[in-house]
Amino acid sequence: MDDLLRRLRAGLPAEALITDPDVTPSYARDMAGFCPAGTPAVVVLPRTVEQVQHVMRTATALRVPVVPQGARTGLSGAANATDGCVVLSLVRMDRILDIDPVDRIAVVEPGVVNAVLSRAVAEHGLSYPPDPSSWETCTIGGNIGTASGGLCCVKYGVTAEYVLGLDVVLADGRLLSTGRRTAKGVAGYDLTRLFVGSEGSLGIVVRAVLALRPKPPAQLALAAEFASTADACAAVCAIMERGHTPSLLELMDSTTVRAVNRLGRMGLPDTTAALLLAAFDTPDPAADLAAVGELCTAAGATGVVPADDPAESELLLQARRMSLPALEAVSTATMIDDVCVPRSRLAEMLDGTAAIADAHDLTIGVCAHAGDGNTHPVVCFDHTDPDESRRARASFDAIMALGLELGGTITGEHGVGVLKKEWLARELGPVGLELQRGIKRTFDPLGILNPGKLF
Amino acid sequence: MDDLLRRLRAGLPAEALITDPDVTPSYARDMAGFCPAGTPAVVVLPRTVEQVQHVMRTATALRVPVVPQGARTGLSGAANATDGCVVLSLVRMDRILDIDPVDRIAVVEPGVVNAVLSRAVAEHGLSYPPDPSSWETCTIGGNIGTASGGLCCVKYGVTAEYVLGLDVVLADGRLLSTGRRTAKGVAGYDLTRLFVGSEGSLGIVVRAVLALRPKPPAQLALAAEFASTADACAAVCAIMERGHTPSLLELMDSTTVRAVNRLGRMGLPDTTAALLLAAFDTPDPAADLAAVGELCTAAGATGVVPADDPAESELLLQARRMSLPALEAVSTATMIDDVCVPRSRLAEMLDGTAAIADAHDLTIGVCAHAGDGNTHPVVCFDHTDPDESRRARASFDAIMALGLELGGTITGEHGVGVLKKEWLARELGPVGLELQRGIKRTFDPLGILNPGKLF
Repeated sequence: MDDLLRRLRAGLPAEALITDPDVTPSYARDMAGFCPAGTPAVVVLPRTVEQVQHVMRTATALRVPVVPQGARTGLSGAANATDGCVVLSLVRMDRILDIDPVDRIAVVEPGVVNAVLSRAVAEHGLSYPPDPSSWETCTIGGNIGTASGGLCCVKYGVTAEYVLGLDVVLADGRLLSTGRRTAKGVAGYDLTRLFVGSEGSLGIVVRAVLALRPKPPAQLALAAEFASTADACAAVCAIMERGHTPSLLELMDSTTVRAVNRLGRMGLPDTTAALLLAAFDTPDPAADLAAVGELCTAAGATGVVPADDPAESELLLQARRMSLPALEAVSTATMIDDVCVPRSRLAEMLDGTAAIADAHDLTIGVCAHAGDGNTHPVVCFDHTDPDESRRARASFDAIMALGLELGGTITGEHGVGVLKKEWLARELGPVGLELQRGIKRTFDPLGILNPGKLF
Repeated sequence: MDDLLRRLRAGLPAEALITDPDVTPSYARDMAGFCPAGTPAVVVLPRTVEQVQHVMRTATALRVPVVPQGARTGLSGAANATDGCVVLSLVRMDRILDIDPVDRIAVVEPGVVNAVLSRAVAEHGLSYPPDPSSWETCTIGGNIGTASGGLCCVKYGVTAEYVLGLDVVLADGRLLSTGRRTAKGVAGYDLTRLFVGSEGSLGIVVRAVLALRPKPPAQLALAAEFASTADACAAVCAIMERGHTPSLLELMDSTTVRAVNRLGRMGLPDTTAALLLAAFDTPDPAADLAAVGELCTAAGATGVVPADDPAESELLLQARRMSLPALEAVSTATMIDDVCVPRSRLAEMLDGTAAIADAHDLTIGVCAHAGDGNTHPVVCFDHTDPDESRRARASFDAIMALGLELGGTITGEHGVGVLKKEWLARELGPVGLELQRGIKRTFDPLGILNPGKLF
């Protein structure tokens, strides 16, 4: 420990190190529940690539585990400390190095906050689409580590699709550049993509070349109420089958609608079994909304409310944005799951989740990126009640089992971390797991990079 | 050899094996020039996953190299046989297993021809965008192996972006499933993407889940003539900087324009220094073309010809489609390069290529996916003239050096194969190369999968 600090200090300014035992525990965990976290030996907040290299060289020399962190808004425990580790927080490496409207790229350090980048590129008439719900605080480095998604994915895809190239400090401190600054490139294995979603287990991302898009027109939304989740899911399938490309297609179940009503007095009808929100950022969104409204009505919608302008759209979308805080207000604790199924199986996933809630005598609200088939069941429970906590944990496993049974994946956008390690093994199977472990060994033979995550 | 055939026959029908020494050499190579090719010991044409597994188990037992092949339309020698190898041609595994308009996916075997898939999904109102120029004959398996692109990439990206999941037979015959059937998924390292562009060096793709898109409206094109490539490239930059999203943005240099004129009597003006073709498949393509036409004029276009309807558009695009055959008619042989630079450097790439042609006393025509910065310099030379052949090879190296110097990549969409092995090492650098080799060893410890390619 003394040796670790002495060596770290030799290559870092004093202000880059936190050793105060009253402060270091505040870096112990991200926002996931049910995930163990240890006590870091030291927290390092580097400002330069060279400082990150010094940390990794030191960690390699002393065989000390390193846990990289962004804003710790993650939901799988991927950023949780292990006992005696070096927490490597990248939040101070927060410079936007370049925004190029001709090449449509941005070059950023990992600590840049998603919303800061989004606003900066907007000034150039560009957009960086990935928009996790924590976008006001989460960092690009964290987004890359967890391959995070958001509301935009149904049209614009996840973070992975916007990462063109990376600079990565490897476990032994060497610097690797992957990928490119060009629109296309197929030279060798796609190491860039391998790092996206690797949760800091293969290297420390210190710079990223990101693809940008032209800023789309402001989106226009509608809300449609349904008397059953099956009807709402039928509308989702019809919208996608008919070739529409909404910029957002979200579903809230009755539990979520009621919770939002209680928190925000949104005036949504408490009898709604499912609320569907669709938006378009096309040249003629009103026409697209009209067509989608008709599909909703044909699928059995009991009410369809299109917004007249972007401001009214934002009001409609506020209900969706309030879902999580509203569900958090239902009980003392929540556990947010993230299961993605083929969208044709979405109704089964929602009905199955309701059955799991009943069977476990729990309140589970579901909001879903319905266009993606990506559901977020939010288990609300009293964490001071041991039996309810046990049931909450059990329901979580039942939900993942259901997702796999329906041909889905255990995580659409939150990652594996420590929360879903056992489930990753089930999803990948023994052959896939063996190969993934082989890749891990190739990049991190000593196993010092974020140990105990993913596998 | 006898042992190899005996063992292969034990698990394969007779019709799946070709041993006739008059026939096997016809499977020796793809369409790349300047690439060595050996003589296969046997050509196997399996129809089932189990047959592929049998081939790989046999190859592992006997340590025999296996070279997977699609339609052999590749341009880097990635499908070239090595002496004594098993050529594993996947062309008979050509079933489309599923097309699902709700989930917007297709599930296919590797031997499905790109155009066959494109037409099949069009019947469901869907599109599979990747459109390499060989799309009428090339296979999806080959497209995945080489991560191929096409004209659509400026709007729709390359093959990699459409591969959601794979079934892969590993070197030892085990079957691996990667990825998903869902719109999103971030469970573990992205092995799917690792296989795309791996040129058969990590495993044999036997099934693919592909993402589809709604079929866009028919595209409308314009042609713009320029008095210099610099002006044309300035127009390209202006079009992209202003936030346009053309479905196609192609450039032909003067050598290519003249060659097309000679072959096809297209009536293009022989004095044109660069011809730019832009197309839109938006709801109002005429409006987009008008805006782009103005940008072309502002950049110095000497003439702008917008098409009035899709049929007229097709006529304009025919000039681009004739580029390669037209350049092939210039001399006895051609060598097609594939260098991608940031689009802001496109003018430098084109001018530099013209200087390389002068310095080497060669005819080099360039057609470019200009919106991507992806140039295809086509070196025309007399292959019966040893000195000209030598100069052609030298110019090829000079072009790649120029691409890297401009911040580009040695291959935008054709792959590395044997043609660019040395250049891949230069692009990746020693750290990147070491990690790529480590990945190769993880998947293929005996080194029997397409040896001598990539590295």
